[in-house]
Amino acid sequence: MKQPTEQDIKVATDAVIFTVRHGELMALLIQMKKAPYTDKWAVPGGIIGQAETTEQAARRILITQTGVTQAHLEQLATFDDPKRDKIGRVISVAYVALVASEKVVLQTTDRYADVRWWPAGKLPALAYDHKEVVAVAVERLRSKLEYTNVAWSLLPKAFTLSELQETYETILGRALDKRNFRRKVLELRLVEPTGEKSSGGAHRPAEMYAFKRRGMEYIEVL
Amino acid sequence: MKQPTEQDIKVATDAVIFTVRHGELMALLIQMKKAPYTDKWAVPGGIIGQAETTEQAARRILITQTGVTQAHLEQLATFDDPKRDKIGRVISVAYVALVASEKVVLQTTDRYADVRWWPAGKLPALAYDHKEVVAVAVERLRSKLEYTNVAWSLLPKAFTLSELQETYETILGRALDKRNFRRKVLELRLVEPTGEKSSGGAHRPAEMYAFKRRGMEYIEVL
Repeated sequence: MKQPTEQDIKVATDAVIFTVRHGELMALLIQMKKAPYTDKWAVPGGIIGQAETTEQAARRILITQTGVTQAHLEQLATFDDPKRDKIGRVISVAYVALVASEKVVLQTTDRYADVRWWPAGKLPALAYDHKEVVAVAVERLRSKLEYTNVAWSLLPKAFTLSELQETYETILGRALDKRNFRRKVLELRLVEPTGEKSSGGAHRPAEMYAFKRRGMEYIEVL
Repeated sequence: MKQPTEQDIKVATDAVIFTVRHGELMALLIQMKKAPYTDKWAVPGGIIGQAETTEQAARRILITQTGVTQAHLEQLATFDDPKRDKIGRVISVAYVALVASEKVVLQTTDRYADVRWWPAGKLPALAYDHKEVVAVAVERLRSKLEYTNVAWSLLPKAFTLSELQETYETILGRALDKRNFRRKVLELRLVEPTGEKSSGGAHRPAEMYAFKRRGMEYIEVL
């Protein structure tokens, strides 16, 4: 049990970016060029700067690697298996980033071959320990959805109650009772009517709602 | 937005150790000797070894700095303010450690002046950002108590329902309705009768209970 004295560890951050689109939970991945991970997909990430917090680094990386300029960011967990990176020891302080899908115009840099949304349930093989990182992120998102108002970050400013319920069902992967769900979100004042009606499209116009608070709050939704 | 290339950051871990004793939530602190933190109190912690995970380092540090050999450990969060340590940049992957108070015989090493339990609500001035680390840990413990079986780690193998309720009330800092609480923990099968009776002391002998599962499980207790 001697005190360790020498340490050569790099600190990185990775961000699991989620959105909900066409009834699917999607995760944003980049495709790498450089060996030893050529052509492998990964969640966006990288080494943090000397004077940056991990959250600042995550925001910088989101912008440069994916084009995501606005996201709700939350620290997820730190992944520290000594063998998680082939090039040497790197610990990663991982974040979950949530965005409303209509806000994102994807773009990456020369360092990556591609950037693309993937259905969270059907990801390609991932580099590093990113399969585990994404699994922990999905788990966290599901539980946060149940006991916070975090869904605000995945929806546009105004939406119908059907759209809200679909977002919940998509992420949780199970159906919710329509009457109970509506009663609950209105009773809790999770959302409030905006006074507008949806333009409808194929459907009848429906009442539009907005989140009462767009900022993290603990509230037992389900 | 240039890519950072140089990085000189050390990785440490800190462990906020809680127990419940005499109706109080207690945190274990060490008192430092070395400048610039001479005589300051802090939660146990230190630099991790090159081949250690942060959890392994936290367990090693618990043993050497405090004598705590068995604890339920959970990663809390990573604290990374660039100015959190005066001697240079150190990020800390913090853990919450929970122990049943009768299990602990405190002992520390020559490097520290003292090790002692403090009421979590009345801590002395703390070094580094440990005031914030402890505050986040208390918050996490409270919410975990509500939606998991984690209280198992703070209680002896067998206990009365009054002792269980007191543990909850102590940590949450509020009274719980006795009938509701008992009905809930039995209905949920959080605990089961052992068939034994308490020896009583000043009280009438009461039925003894044990946690059905002593390992983390999500269960909505309150």
